[in-house]
Amino acid sequence: MARASYLPSLDPELGRTRGLVVAIAADIRIGRLRAGERLPGSRSLATSLGLSRGTVVQAYEELRAEGWLESEPSSGMRVRADLPEPTPAVATPGPTLGFALPDEVRRHDPMARDVSVPYRLFGGHPDLRLLPLDELARAYRRVLKGRGRRLLGYSDPQGERRLRVALSEWLAATRGLRPDPDGMLVTRGSQMALYLLAHTLLRPGDVVAVERFGYPPAWAAFESAGAVLHAVDVDDEGMCIDQLPDHVRAVYLTPHHQYPTGATLSAPRRLRLLQWAAERGIALIEDDYDHEYHYDGPPVRPLIASDPAGVVVSIGTLSKAFAPGVRVGFVLAPPAVLDRLVRRRRLVDRQGDRVVEQAMAELIDDGSMQRHFWRTRRVYAARRQALDEALSAHLPGVLPQRRPGGLALWCEVPGVDVDAWASRCVEHGVFFETARTYAIDQRSSPQVRLGFAPHTEDELGEAVRRMARAWRPPM
Amino acid sequence: MARASYLPSLDPELGRTRGLVVAIAADIRIGRLRAGERLPGSRSLATSLGLSRGTVVQAYEELRAEGWLESEPSSGMRVRADLPEPTPAVATPGPTLGFALPDEVRRHDPMARDVSVPYRLFGGHPDLRLLPLDELARAYRRVLKGRGRRLLGYSDPQGERRLRVALSEWLAATRGLRPDPDGMLVTRGSQMALYLLAHTLLRPGDVVAVERFGYPPAWAAFESAGAVLHAVDVDDEGMCIDQLPDHVRAVYLTPHHQYPTGATLSAPRRLRLLQWAAERGIALIEDDYDHEYHYDGPPVRPLIASDPAGVVVSIGTLSKAFAPGVRVGFVLAPPAVLDRLVRRRRLVDRQGDRVVEQAMAELIDDGSMQRHFWRTRRVYAARRQALDEALSAHLPGVLPQRRPGGLALWCEVPGVDVDAWASRCVEHGVFFETARTYAIDQRSSPQVRLGFAPHTEDELGEAVRRMARAWRPPM
Repeated sequence: MARASYLPSLDPELGRTRGLVVAIAADIRIGRLRAGERLPGSRSLATSLGLSRGTVVQAYEELRAEGWLESEPSSGMRVRADLPEPTPAVATPGPTLGFALPDEVRRHDPMARDVSVPYRLFGGHPDLRLLPLDELARAYRRVLKGRGRRLLGYSDPQGERRLRVALSEWLAATRGLRPDPDGMLVTRGSQMALYLLAHTLLRPGDVVAVERFGYPPAWAAFESAGAVLHAVDVDDEGMCIDQLPDHVRAVYLTPHHQYPTGATLSAPRRLRLLQWAAERGIALIEDDYDHEYHYDGPPVRPLIASDPAGVVVSIGTLSKAFAPGVRVGFVLAPPAVLDRLVRRRRLVDRQGDRVVEQAMAELIDDGSMQRHFWRTRRVYAARRQALDEALSAHLPGVLPQRRPGGLALWCEVPGVDVDAWASRCVEHGVFFETARTYAIDQRSSPQVRLGFAPHTEDELGEAVRRMARAWRPPM
Repeated sequence: MARASYLPSLDPELGRTRGLVVAIAADIRIGRLRAGERLPGSRSLATSLGLSRGTVVQAYEELRAEGWLESEPSSGMRVRADLPEPTPAVATPGPTLGFALPDEVRRHDPMARDVSVPYRLFGGHPDLRLLPLDELARAYRRVLKGRGRRLLGYSDPQGERRLRVALSEWLAATRGLRPDPDGMLVTRGSQMALYLLAHTLLRPGDVVAVERFGYPPAWAAFESAGAVLHAVDVDDEGMCIDQLPDHVRAVYLTPHHQYPTGATLSAPRRLRLLQWAAERGIALIEDDYDHEYHYDGPPVRPLIASDPAGVVVSIGTLSKAFAPGVRVGFVLAPPAVLDRLVRRRRLVDRQGDRVVEQAMAELIDDGSMQRHFWRTRRVYAARRQALDEALSAHLPGVLPQRRPGGLALWCEVPGVDVDAWASRCVEHGVFFETARTYAIDQRSSPQVRLGFAPHTEDELGEAVRRMARAWRPPM
């Protein structure tokens, strides 16, 4: 039964021994070598392949250990006699899918788009050029030097306590709210907070009220938990809470700077909303994603600051005040909710990145975060004004709405097909989002959102001049 | 309606202006100040409180911006006339929960335990004292220096491509498998891989076959997606695949070093399992969590290396080969599954930590990871032998099972109440897990799992001597 002429075909990328193992195992799988068949002697195969005999001996030994081969009484090797019928051969892993997948709900994600043009007026992106990179590198260095080894083990899924204490101080300084560090979960950005809340608070079929112009990644998180969305209008005072139906399990809203319109939920609506939710036992999910960037007057305090009934869970993030890539966010929630969130978080990724959490705590503790925030707020305020002035000068048909904060201008553009205009702008090197991106029904309407944070005043001026050139369709 | 005697009570922790804002807003909320009521003049209130007049003016201005106050025609301030009835006051955020939570399934997590004793024989923990911390710090430094700014923005949820290329090389070197980097998703450890797969492959009510002794955090991930578990026995050849029923949607198994028993799935079972799954369109979820630590003979290749039908998704991690705290794992899957996983991952936390992903790529590319792995495999092999010998010498009633790899010895302890013994060992300063920790029905049986990786040979010797002293119950 021996076949001296057997010659396996080696993948040069895999190295000699491993290549031989892979080739012989593949030949057994595809039936080129059959159960019980003898292999060539190691010396003979080595000569045929131009390999050392030791390589062949080692490969045979591996194949025996893997259960493909067995030793012969005559000291040679043969394919194991008890192997079942072979399956056809393929490259590994291949493109085939051998099982069915369940249905999937998909939502457009405004932050998933990336357009390679020089002027990208994203509303949710800070200017990474302003980051204090030396301070950040120093913070990483200190953390790794002082505590590195310990930080690389398993740890508390609630997040580094030092960071929770630091965030509590940060919130006291920026939001007039000093939460108990033990009542806080550190998450990987606000998206994880939304996801965990969706899967902790909601049952399939539950209705969640959302803003009609809103944040699609949050909606997708709720839908992934089987929730049904109910849209409510927004106006200059934020979410129109009088439209809220009583059969909802939760309300998701962006009360401070409504996403994407920038409107602040008015004080009467805040009080009424809190009362309405408390009376009905409805959860309010407050997404306070860029609280800090408030230019006109002091920031309004989060809903959770006025919540005796325990109906509010509040989400924040360092994605805007520092950088999206650090993925540090947090949730404030009543203890019963927090316990659930921590357990769910353990299921999702077990724990956060302790090194980055400690590095962020280091930046807050040594004042770098605060200085960066002061600097960027000043810079962004100037950019906001520059964009506003450039629009007045070059695009009088674009009407920025007066809002006290945020990183973008929400503009009415009456009588214009803004989607067609936005497409023409891309050809002129400028990208921005139109209202339909944020509309729950994805319907077009004459508004655009112009992010000013990632570009300098000069760059914004140039972007607006290009947008003006694209204003009228070519003849 | 003015009340000159009004005196708010300030929280000294909040700073003067903010303290005043908080106090007045609280008094409005609790009804101490009523809608339309006039506030004291700024000069008079400043005098009463011992503050500067500017502080009071600023606080009033903030309260006006927040919508609590409005200017009077006579240039004073009053509480807004259109505020609704106040709600009772509390500290923020408080312990109350104002809404109902859905039911929750909970599972014991063997990795969640932490016992403060000197000898902790955890099976899943590497020895962090062996980590090349200088190389890691240098990798972070290089990454932040070279690409830091860019890495702190939004990015690809599939993970840094450079790391996927590096991991593909790593797998070629350690597992004889060279996957397409574009067919790989980088996750935050194997736990995120399990979670994403559970929520991508399974519908509520789907049955997942699992090993009867197994990994509870994986089970919890499947149950969080609404799946029902079906347990199958394990023996010295791994999962008893002849027990698999046909009505399962997926099989979750640890074929290389069965968790927790360490058995390797035999070659005939591997082939039969692949064929069985391919014929029925059943997904095989292969958790290859510590593939690299194989001492006796070469490692067996992953199931996905022999999967022409596209039924296998394969999970790996750097938690054992490097450190759990870096949270870097990966999934290999057919393209249709990978697309889903990437979209789900975007919902969960949008993207990974690019800095740590680049740092791990740096360590693989510069050979540090490989050197660390070679070193630890040598060290762990010696520790394994030391533990084995110490058990023979001091605890002849504890019988380690012969397994080719892993970071723990699975031991039969016939005729002994191992749970009682383990409790006595904790009093002697030694912690280890017993079989019930890993049993799907949490029933006791006479086996223990002794992790040898986190302790030196001397430490293991001392641990075993203590375990021997705890062997018999005190008289």
